[in-house]
Amino acid sequence: MSHPDAVIHDRATGVAADTVAKHAEAQPLVFYAGWFCPFVQRSWIALEEKGVPYQYKEVNPYKKEPHFLAINPKGLVPSAEVHGKALYESLVLNEFFEDFFPDAPKLLPEDPVEKARARIWIDYIAKTIVPAFMRLVMAQDPAEQSKLLNDYYDALKKYAEQIAPGGPYFLGPKFSLVDATIAPWVVRDYIITEHRGYTRSAAGEAWEKYSQAIETRDSIVNTASEKQYYAQIYARYLKNEAMSEFAKALRQGKSF
Amino acid sequence: MSHPDAVIHDRATGVAADTVAKHAEAQPLVFYAGWFCPFVQRSWIALEEKGVPYQYKEVNPYKKEPHFLAINPKGLVPSAEVHGKALYESLVLNEFFEDFFPDAPKLLPEDPVEKARARIWIDYIAKTIVPAFMRLVMAQDPAEQSKLLNDYYDALKKYAEQIAPGGPYFLGPKFSLVDATIAPWVVRDYIITEHRGYTRSAAGEAWEKYSQAIETRDSIVNTASEKQYYAQIYARYLKNEAMSEFAKALRQGKSF
Ligand SMILES: N[C@@H](CCC(=O)N[C@@H](CS)C(=O)NCC(=O)O)C(=O)O
Ligand SMILES: N[C@@H](CCC(=O)N[C@@H](CS)C(=O)NCC(=O)O)C(=O)O
Repeated sequence: MSHPDAVIHDRATGVAADTVAKHAEAQPLVFYAGWFCPFVQRSWIALEEKGVPYQYKEVNPYKKEPHFLAINPKGLVPSAEVHGKALYESLVLNEFFEDFFPDAPKLLPEDPVEKARARIWIDYIAKTIVPAFMRLVMAQDPAEQSKLLNDYYDALKKYAEQIAPGGPYFLGPKFSLVDATIAPWVVRDYIITEHRGYTRSAAGEAWEKYSQAIETRDSIVNTASEKQYYAQIYARYLKNEAMSEFAKALRQGKSF
Repeated sequence: MSHPDAVIHDRATGVAADTVAKHAEAQPLVFYAGWFCPFVQRSWIALEEKGVPYQYKEVNPYKKEPHFLAINPKGLVPSAEVHGKALYESLVLNEFFEDFFPDAPKLLPEDPVEKARARIWIDYIAKTIVPAFMRLVMAQDPAEQSKLLNDYYDALKKYAEQIAPGGPYFLGPKFSLVDATIAPWVVRDYIITEHRGYTRSAAGEAWEKYSQAIETRDSIVNTASEKQYYAQIYARYLKNEAMSEFAKALRQGKSF
């Protein structure tokens, strides 16, 4: 029986398709990705920022194909395979790239205190911002939507207060894993603009400027497909019909 | 107005009191802790394993005292203060200790792939095991309790399958941050044994042996207070009356 969310365009399009084409050759690091997935984009951005060799393999995780489940029993993208071992979880992968490619540009500060501060805000994005975005997308009742929109603004403002003065990135002039972690939800915010009344400016000027810096960054542009293809996926979330593990966890009030 | 959860014995007792006494002197790293808190114990275990200098300062986080909120606006323990900067989140602190004390014994594998695998299971403990434990403690309806007890066994079995053959610790002979992350919920499992019918053996032999190895480890014994003092705190959770940020997040189906 086919998964209700499995109907997805089968490959990256637009600029992302060119990036995929550049990473077709076999490499020690295989990156299992779905072009549409915001968690994938987090790690894909990190790879592009580091400029390290990787082989991109497109997977539709909703198909739960045996060859992919053999690599990652969790059946989620992003996954990576290195020396026959499977790794997964976007944030774990991003830390892994730091360790595995010691000569590539670092995306976390060297100073231990600054590094810990970066991880505090990565944790905040994962636990607070992303679930707030998804709750807003999935809510059906208009009163609930407007409450959740305010919650989302509050979550963004708290983050924006912490952006380095002068920016343009969270930690200052240098792009970091903090930016990579939030970026996919910045570039997808037109969905909540179109359907839930969100505007960047309502979250404050700092947030608006930051969003602009994020969406024009090369690594982010180069990992984005054409907008029309995302619509098919978000249509299911917007009707609260998605049956992904994330959507189910959120409905049950579970961490994901 | 006083927080309903603020009535807590004001200091560590038993073996933990001796450990506190050894860490009274000023040090560059101040560790803000609540003796009763499982998240604190995670990081306290890491500090004890590393044998590094730190100053232990007892805080009752439910009192939300201005001097503590000035250090950590989130008002949660564990927190740390280093060179005037505040850090928090137990898992972030544990990674920070790795980076800040490069000459102390390492609690994560050196190999990047093994290190990433350790982080995958740390993430699993945080997202799956701990919330499952707390949901079980807070559930009031007997049918719900028995369902949640089974969920908890399932979560533990999945973890236990991954313990290194021969153990005794998750990654093998060497104790790691994976063990430190789960340990506080192993040493507190008598609460669900007394009140929710949990037995270690029902989660399998591997889990039972592992639990034994964990609860007899020095760093874990040395950071545990006398059992009777924990009872006061868990009584509120067992009646689902706790108003901690964690309890509230769990009731609202939010990540914490
Ligand atoms: N926490 C994971 C989430 C990954 C995730 O949910 N990926 C989705 C696609 S966006 C997936 O593979 N879903 C398959 C499913 O839900 O069955 C991460 O950060 O990597
Ligand atoms: N995610 C945090 C949780 C810390 C936490 O919840 N600490 C509790 C005590 S066990 C606390 O400070 N609670 C204060 C409150 O809830 O107001 C961590 O891992 O450090």
